[in-house]
Amino acid sequence: VATNGARRELPEENLDALVEVLDDIRAHTTRSRAEIVRSRNLSRAVVAQRVQELLDRGLVELGDAGPSTGGRAPRLLRFRRDAGHLLVADLGATSIDVAIADLGGHLLVHHQEPADIADGPEAVLGRVAELFREILAGTPRLTSELWGIGVGVPGPVEFETGRAVAPPIMPGWDGFLVGEYFSQRFGVPVWVDNDVNVMALGELRAGVARGHSNVVFVKIGTGVGAGLVVDGHLHRGAQGSAGDVGHIRVTDDPAVICRCGKTGCLEAVAGGAALARDGRAVAEAGRSALLLELVDAEGEVTAEGVAWAAGRGDPASVELIRRAGALVGDMLSTAVHFLNPSLLVIGGGVSAAGDELLASIREVVYGTSLPLATRDLAIQRSALGHRAGVVGAATMVADGLFSRDRLGLWIERGSPAQTT
Amino acid sequence: VATNGARRELPEENLDALVEVLDDIRAHTTRSRAEIVRSRNLSRAVVAQRVQELLDRGLVELGDAGPSTGGRAPRLLRFRRDAGHLLVADLGATSIDVAIADLGGHLLVHHQEPADIADGPEAVLGRVAELFREILAGTPRLTSELWGIGVGVPGPVEFETGRAVAPPIMPGWDGFLVGEYFSQRFGVPVWVDNDVNVMALGELRAGVARGHSNVVFVKIGTGVGAGLVVDGHLHRGAQGSAGDVGHIRVTDDPAVICRCGKTGCLEAVAGGAALARDGRAVAEAGRSALLLELVDAEGEVTAEGVAWAAGRGDPASVELIRRAGALVGDMLSTAVHFLNPSLLVIGGGVSAAGDELLASIREVVYGTSLPLATRDLAIQRSALGHRAGVVGAATMVADGLFSRDRLGLWIERGSPAQTT
Repeated sequence: VATNGARRELPEENLDALVEVLDDIRAHTTRSRAEIVRSRNLSRAVVAQRVQELLDRGLVELGDAGPSTGGRAPRLLRFRRDAGHLLVADLGATSIDVAIADLGGHLLVHHQEPADIADGPEAVLGRVAELFREILAGTPRLTSELWGIGVGVPGPVEFETGRAVAPPIMPGWDGFLVGEYFSQRFGVPVWVDNDVNVMALGELRAGVARGHSNVVFVKIGTGVGAGLVVDGHLHRGAQGSAGDVGHIRVTDDPAVICRCGKTGCLEAVAGGAALARDGRAVAEAGRSALLLELVDAEGEVTAEGVAWAAGRGDPASVELIRRAGALVGDMLSTAVHFLNPSLLVIGGGVSAAGDELLASIREVVYGTSLPLATRDLAIQRSALGHRAGVVGAATMVADGLFSRDRLGLWIERGSPAQTT
Repeated sequence: VATNGARRELPEENLDALVEVLDDIRAHTTRSRAEIVRSRNLSRAVVAQRVQELLDRGLVELGDAGPSTGGRAPRLLRFRRDAGHLLVADLGATSIDVAIADLGGHLLVHHQEPADIADGPEAVLGRVAELFREILAGTPRLTSELWGIGVGVPGPVEFETGRAVAPPIMPGWDGFLVGEYFSQRFGVPVWVDNDVNVMALGELRAGVARGHSNVVFVKIGTGVGAGLVVDGHLHRGAQGSAGDVGHIRVTDDPAVICRCGKTGCLEAVAGGAALARDGRAVAEAGRSALLLELVDAEGEVTAEGVAWAAGRGDPASVELIRRAGALVGDMLSTAVHFLNPSLLVIGGGVSAAGDELLASIREVVYGTSLPLATRDLAIQRSALGHRAGVVGAATMVADGLFSRDRLGLWIERGSPAQTT
């Protein structure tokens, strides 16, 4: 509630234009007022007023002079991505990534360590909070304020409330208010989403998907999941479970039992845990000297190990990777029929480990989809790799902070980092 | 080009509000100014001005008095759906539907006749143009002007240009400018889209999908196709081929050859043409007395005939319908994993013919999808049935006429039915 004279109300339509102008400046390294007028279809006067508002609030700064069109050259505008900073975390099934990021999604500090999501929210989030405090303390040169927190979790999330809606693989997480956990401890607004959605957002804004409007991002890590960009926006679905492709039934084989309790799921055959299991079996059966060497050297076979061995031509590993690639490719071919995207992005730890998986996915998608839908379809590896989650989480927070509702609150109350 | 003094330019932001107010009134039977203020988050003054603009232009009229809040009760607003009329056509693989509709998508006249899309665009569209003229001539009580035309075609469409991007099943249609064909002959703007998209839009605005934001509409006619509503909007994809689910590979059986030239496609097993083929084979093999009766009575077995026989308990027909339902159900289960919709709508001629198909689709989708995604998922039959295409086409035209760009042109030039 505003109690002092600083309270201002901007008419709704003015706020819309403010969001448009800021979005436009944020999306470019430098931007002239004339470019904003053209691209956003706003009047010169409206753009000039909104730019001044953003300059006054320190969100935008003047850069070099732009090209002159006769008189004095106008100075270009630049988003002040250092006006505040963000804390972000990407929780995987077996790892935690935390980072400090600026408002443009650039990472200032990045730390990764192993973790087990099945330890439950108090243990895992407690460790994340501890890491947040440590990296803040270890970065004394930060002069800006903390403006927000972003968290990706490896399961469905009710985006509006930051509540985990967890499948059986995350015992203890169902209904847990992840957002509230951090907003109470750090006193800033928190955005929470499914980890794969967050990675897709990272690729859309700062990775290989820049400029695309329809994208399917598939993560092949311990499990398999997808993030969908539809008409330029992340699609979360009615319950936040959109992109939950790991549990599509791909085989009738009753021996393929998934951690979700069903049989025949995609990730029970093509996910990282499945590849590690099958690689171990192949090594133990004496069908791969290379995988057996891995077991001797590292004590275990990981999915990354299988991908690495496939890259070195190990026939049994090539077979495993090809089978996984064909099944992921079938799923993506179906996605192409449904959604007609212009880009498929392959991410996650397993995909990063070698070229064989990408090659077999491409073979299946281009071979089985409609020519019309694949004519201009690109299939590429993630550009951000293991940073996709934290970069995407920072982008999610920046999008939230500079959304219509938040900017309205800010102008009313005088601070960007209001928790309600 | 505007050449007289009537030319007016509305500032861009004012136009946005005009579209919002009109959308809001169009979406309701009656609407008060106060309701618009609340639902659209606009100021009272802005709503009052825009309502007056719409009253002046004859798009909105005053109805009964609304509930009083103290003073004189304000009169409710009503969209004048009879301000103009529309011509709409729904082209199927084997039929043409044409209709005259009002601006609210209500049909004034509706005519259906058999046709063969493979006769090519000149023949099929020539017949549609002839039918348009006939139903206009046969409806002398029309006092309003023709404001636009809408056409659904059974293949991908480049929506912006009204150009058919046809698969091999529509010889001669590839690249044909369907929109231009009608705009040249009738002098009004034309909107063209894929028939299943148009049907999905009809269900969204006037059918069983009203109020839903995420919907998958599947048409089981001669072929199989889907229309996707994502976050309240039709999703067309990068090349307009989104929802082209009939050619998803569902079997490795090389004997299942699709009309697209590939093998194993969904519609080659579960589409109406496939059901008719299989029903005929069953009758000829003497495995169904009921289907044989149909052959004797009608000279052929249709997919509708198989569905009807299944409804009467004919075991061979039940088996065929169940197999088709299971395959369509598998596809929809995958759609649920991808998109997490709140509603699946089953439409098209085959689905209308009996309950067995819907039952088997429901069994598979509820049995194989994640519980989270199906918790609030409804699976329903099309409410509009064979009218879905023409009602949807009328909705598409109304949406186009009252879009931001069109309303801007109208205000500039003084007529809603400008062709460019």
